[in-house]
Amino acid sequence: MTEDRRPLLAVTMGDPAGIGPEVVVRALASRKARVAARLLVVGDARVLARAAAAAGRRSPLATVESPAEAARRAGRPCLLDLHNADPEAIPMGRPSAAAGAAAAAYIERAVALALAGEVAGIVTGPVNKEALRLAGVPYPGHTEMLAALCAAPEVAMMLAQGHLRVAHVTTHVSVREACNRVHRARVFAVTRLMHEALQRAGIPQPRIAVAGLNPHAGESGLFGDEEQREISPAIADARAAGIDATGPIPPDTVFARHRAGEFDGVVAMLHDHGHIAVKTVGFRPGPDGRLRSGGVNVTLGLPIVRTSVDHGTAFDIAGAGVADATSMVEAIAFAARMAAR
Amino acid sequence: MTEDRRPLLAVTMGDPAGIGPEVVVRALASRKARVAARLLVVGDARVLARAAAAAGRRSPLATVESPAEAARRAGRPCLLDLHNADPEAIPMGRPSAAAGAAAAAYIERAVALALAGEVAGIVTGPVNKEALRLAGVPYPGHTEMLAALCAAPEVAMMLAQGHLRVAHVTTHVSVREACNRVHRARVFAVTRLMHEALQRAGIPQPRIAVAGLNPHAGESGLFGDEEQREISPAIADARAAGIDATGPIPPDTVFARHRAGEFDGVVAMLHDHGHIAVKTVGFRPGPDGRLRSGGVNVTLGLPIVRTSVDHGTAFDIAGAGVADATSMVEAIAFAARMAAR
Repeated sequence: MTEDRRPLLAVTMGDPAGIGPEVVVRALASRKARVAARLLVVGDARVLARAAAAAGRRSPLATVESPAEAARRAGRPCLLDLHNADPEAIPMGRPSAAAGAAAAAYIERAVALALAGEVAGIVTGPVNKEALRLAGVPYPGHTEMLAALCAAPEVAMMLAQGHLRVAHVTTHVSVREACNRVHRARVFAVTRLMHEALQRAGIPQPRIAVAGLNPHAGESGLFGDEEQREISPAIADARAAGIDATGPIPPDTVFARHRAGEFDGVVAMLHDHGHIAVKTVGFRPGPDGRLRSGGVNVTLGLPIVRTSVDHGTAFDIAGAGVADATSMVEAIAFAARMAAR
Repeated sequence: MTEDRRPLLAVTMGDPAGIGPEVVVRALASRKARVAARLLVVGDARVLARAAAAAGRRSPLATVESPAEAARRAGRPCLLDLHNADPEAIPMGRPSAAAGAAAAAYIERAVALALAGEVAGIVTGPVNKEALRLAGVPYPGHTEMLAALCAAPEVAMMLAQGHLRVAHVTTHVSVREACNRVHRARVFAVTRLMHEALQRAGIPQPRIAVAGLNPHAGESGLFGDEEQREISPAIADARAAGIDATGPIPPDTVFARHRAGEFDGVVAMLHDHGHIAVKTVGFRPGPDGRLRSGGVNVTLGLPIVRTSVDHGTAFDIAGAGVADATSMVEAIAFAARMAAR
């Protein structure tokens, strides 16, 4: 018997009241996910059983006590059962303190396993901000929570969807505040983080486009000076560091050029510059008319590999057995690719 | 012989040194454009002859002295020759004062014809901002120039591409300044202008989505308060005025939902929110690898019908005979549809 070279990934099931448990169950049945990685789900057995029933699937999980035990199980998906989410006590489809606390516990455990080297990376299911807040875990986003847990000084959110990859200089702040945060050092740091992540994902010398902040990338200073004052110097810094960085490129054409193959990734200044490009292309209606995507959220700058689905808890369809797991499958595949190097 | 019901449109050839003359010549040969409208080109015969030669086409234009004469010509495309751009004196592929002055003159004449009711609308070829500046015609964009020529108090730029239609609350200003300009009255005005334009384009009760400014549409005030302070009240105003307006919707999902058919148009707060959505979807590589689009720029709020190509002068390929006229053809078809009502 040959050695199993697939990386072992921890997969958190997300908020028990949302679609996270269902997309995890569905992803475990996906050939693509199982070929890419050995999977250790971090969650609650009762909630996953309910999700499997809703999805009309057998839950293929064997409960284990540790990643080491999961590693011995010859590749069958395993569950680390935190036994912290009683389906009788947690209402489906709405935020609750109990669900928020459970979801936070899965992330904390998965991060701890990754920091200890017991898993090669983590893939996270969707959490609900309101539920986290009710549980006293107030982070504006998943990314910020992970940065705190890992004590990472500089992180960035990257969205990946098909051939599109966008790293963000700013995320969960107002547009006004985002303008204040477009600094030379930050733009350089995000460009460097993306460079390293794309190398890790298998591109030896990534071609990175750095977008402008303002219309037409400022039109030579006519519509804002952040390009001249902060972004261009940061690009010069990146090039001096051996990074193939180009820009600043007008935000409205850089993604079309990226999509056409001119670049391997884009550094965007605003949350929605990047998110609009990725989601407008990637979110397409499924057979039921609901929008679905295969997008992946990657946190750059952590000491661990971490990817996530790019959708939320979708409380409106939680428990209905109609959730789509494409994004979770892609998140597992992406994490496996990064963890393998 | 039946009456020719096609509207008569003035088509400006744009900057003589760019690809405008070539896309006009190519569009004149398009069945779609000629079925949609009778066309009166406003430009220079010598420049158009050069463009036709570069494109390997016969120029089908008959020179006329007035729109009335063009109207009598049984539908053959005609030229109002301003004789103001000497090909010997105007270098191809770079900005010059002579070319900028000529391009401005075409627009001024076309606007005058439309204001006088001699044509049913205008379609404009691409101009170059630097050339206009050299000619002493300094506008940040085409839209602003047209607003000034028509003395229109409130205009907005709409991009249309396939089923995507986006009207912009702000355009050619820095992102910082754009935040200052997201006002209740302006958001309402643009929503109303889009409502009227879509009705004119044939949609009796347009479903209009109003996007937020901030990530997640402000996440209930956590990432900025413009949604609560300005945008939501403007949507209430629109609904009170009988407009089917919905929002504020997070900028990163509103365009995907629009694309999937949920709305007939989106009101975007920032130039690049709308432009990224339209161009990332619409700009695709042609057989030569260059990006091309069928996007149309529509100016809302003018007393005249006005559409435009959504691309620039493309100086790098001017004169090479490889320009794509899809956007010009679509701009003609869109103007014809609006002018017919």
